[in-house]
Amino acid sequence: MSTLWKSRYSLRTRQIRSSAIRELLKMVEKPHMISFAGGLPAPDVFPAERFEEACEKVLSRHCAVALQYGATEGYDSLREMIARHMARYGILTKAENVLITSGSQQALDLIGKLLTNSGDRVLVEAPTYLGALQAFSVYGAQYLSVPVDADGLRTELLEDTLRLGAKFIYSLPNFQNPAGVTLSEERRKQLIMLADKYGVPIIEDDPYGQLRYEGEHIAPLLVLDRKRMRRDGDDYSFGNVIYLSTFSKTLAPGLRLGWIVAPTDVIAKLVQLKQGADLHTSTFTQLVAYEVARGGFLDQHVKRIRKVYRERRDVMLEALEEFFPSEVTWTRPQGGLFLWISLPQGMDSQSLFRAALAENVAFVPGDSFYASNGLESNRHLRLNFSYCAPAQIREGIRRLSVAVKSQLCSSTCRRAEMDSALDAALAHKV
Amino acid sequence: MSTLWKSRYSLRTRQIRSSAIRELLKMVEKPHMISFAGGLPAPDVFPAERFEEACEKVLSRHCAVALQYGATEGYDSLREMIARHMARYGILTKAENVLITSGSQQALDLIGKLLTNSGDRVLVEAPTYLGALQAFSVYGAQYLSVPVDADGLRTELLEDTLRLGAKFIYSLPNFQNPAGVTLSEERRKQLIMLADKYGVPIIEDDPYGQLRYEGEHIAPLLVLDRKRMRRDGDDYSFGNVIYLSTFSKTLAPGLRLGWIVAPTDVIAKLVQLKQGADLHTSTFTQLVAYEVARGGFLDQHVKRIRKVYRERRDVMLEALEEFFPSEVTWTRPQGGLFLWISLPQGMDSQSLFRAALAENVAFVPGDSFYASNGLESNRHLRLNFSYCAPAQIREGIRRLSVAVKSQLCSSTCRRAEMDSALDAALAHKV
Repeated sequence: MSTLWKSRYSLRTRQIRSSAIRELLKMVEKPHMISFAGGLPAPDVFPAERFEEACEKVLSRHCAVALQYGATEGYDSLREMIARHMARYGILTKAENVLITSGSQQALDLIGKLLTNSGDRVLVEAPTYLGALQAFSVYGAQYLSVPVDADGLRTELLEDTLRLGAKFIYSLPNFQNPAGVTLSEERRKQLIMLADKYGVPIIEDDPYGQLRYEGEHIAPLLVLDRKRMRRDGDDYSFGNVIYLSTFSKTLAPGLRLGWIVAPTDVIAKLVQLKQGADLHTSTFTQLVAYEVARGGFLDQHVKRIRKVYRERRDVMLEALEEFFPSEVTWTRPQGGLFLWISLPQGMDSQSLFRAALAENVAFVPGDSFYASNGLESNRHLRLNFSYCAPAQIREGIRRLSVAVKSQLCSSTCRRAEMDSALDAALAHKV
Repeated sequence: MSTLWKSRYSLRTRQIRSSAIRELLKMVEKPHMISFAGGLPAPDVFPAERFEEACEKVLSRHCAVALQYGATEGYDSLREMIARHMARYGILTKAENVLITSGSQQALDLIGKLLTNSGDRVLVEAPTYLGALQAFSVYGAQYLSVPVDADGLRTELLEDTLRLGAKFIYSLPNFQNPAGVTLSEERRKQLIMLADKYGVPIIEDDPYGQLRYEGEHIAPLLVLDRKRMRRDGDDYSFGNVIYLSTFSKTLAPGLRLGWIVAPTDVIAKLVQLKQGADLHTSTFTQLVAYEVARGGFLDQHVKRIRKVYRERRDVMLEALEEFFPSEVTWTRPQGGLFLWISLPQGMDSQSLFRAALAENVAFVPGDSFYASNGLESNRHLRLNFSYCAPAQIREGIRRLSVAVKSQLCSSTCRRAEMDSALDAALAHKV
């Protein structure tokens, strides 16, 4: 019946691949499954009562605004609050530089629309956030990848890649999704310097920056870029960096509220693109978020979340130490929601995924987070530690270790078999 | 400072024109202004108490779902409710054929993404909904326009235009925005027949269909298209029509909740595109809308809105009769939010807009609603009758009539002046 539609699809529609992750996650919805797969905040930290009070206030006092159409830029009081809130993390900005988006994902879609022509090359980290790849690919982005290590993007490899010509750089400097690693201050400065040298703008995606559990806060790229050009501008000036963040990890993802910090003329263009995309983000959720967050609640709440997630991260790290074989390694994130496991050569994350499902534990195989499939892309797993309660985390890691050991054994056995087959062949001089 | 960004803009970003309407609407926010400009529902019909109850219930009973990430397709109970609700308007459909969108505007954006390659020609009504032009243009749409009259799209002109090759047809059959006209059943059948003959799919945009104040409900294009192919399919089959609607005019636009009805394989593609665009629509607003609308409330509430808006339409029509000169004509919409005024030759809506602002009354000049600027595009105004209270409507039309008369006089005077200048020239044989 819908061959007519299929024959009318745009090129970009024909090119989207079905998301492997999405198909996998369907299998995860079994009872008794312990899932480290999603990037979900813990529902136990949702401040339900505070939301109830906020809704009552919004509806009894501001109903005519909250339920009506609103400005594409966003609700002014919320934009002002976000500007104040970001100042605590060193980002000085004015409300007019803040555009409210329907989640951070929409920010990525609007950035893709704003900057990408079909065939443009976007420089991304390897691995990087899957949703960004999805958002940019729709506009025909091609990718240049630079690997990350424990200190984030390997900036010593950046210059060679920049010489190939990048439209923009997309970076997640804090507690990166999926690898959980953080870009060191030294490397941030190198990144800023090279972006300036090659005239390539940077999109700084920072959904997790507020969730640091240990170590010192490192200045965002936006701030370091301002320092670079201190002589030209004031504390509020913009250079080569646009900054994105969200309430999804601090208040609630179900609100779909994110924001973009950018120069006013860029904001003006983004507003025009957003008008065509969804007119504006829900005024109702914006007013509710404002009432929930105001009066210092957001800061208090972030402290509480940090405490809960820090404990969960520690439980996961301890369980990994206890149960996992020494051939397997992992990152030790100082914040955020994820850690990243590397399997030894010969093992592969897709087979491990199937073995893990049989043990009733789930994760996301690392392949999805690479712009291009390299040799290494199938040897990683992303584990989320924010969603499950500590006891579940421990049990889940134990189950996963069973799957890992069985795979490790079979991969070692396979190698041994191959070796002996080779020996036999050599002996018979076949 | 942001020359770097400007030099990196995509072609589509360079091509977007600043929206005239948007600039105009800024002028409208003066005190004492009576505005017929926006497409805003009356805030006095927002069911604030029902929303309060719904929020309390959602947050006390379903908080972990409402504030969490959700499925891209939408909240299942809401999709089922929408399917049941649409059946009252003759549209039989299953929940799996309903995709929840972040307002109807996002539906248009997703349709643009799904179908449009740069340079594709989209057949639209003249005039048509401005937001659709914005949404499709971002993907490089070109336009073919077919005029509307009191019975909607002039289908007798359709075939010649279809021969030029259209990727899809975008139509607003009920109480069209901006013209307020409704496509007759006869013409709907012709449109269906011609779309089938030329193999061109139809996007049926129906935000106002539920708001009929008089006359008989006319079957949607989706339903008539099913009848055309009755022998092939069952009552739930799909042919050449995708249908869009929204809660913006029945519950509240501040929720940003719309939906698309389409074959499941088209829904699957749209889901992938939506994932990249905003992951999913706010679960919180979806659950709240479901709790507000359930148990028959939506139907009751729609009845109430019809009563309120019908009165306002009548007051506007009466005031137009009373105050306006006979040279000016207007449509008599059987539903929806808008009526459309046509000025006599020589007058122009932009000058009238400035004169009207001086009288403290606002509207949207018709130009913005045409895909291409023709001779006729500057002789129309769109008036909204849902937002202002009846007394304001009457006073606003009186003020507008003052502006109209002054412009009419000056245009007549100008013509008289030109005539006498011509006479003089002829007399002197210049």
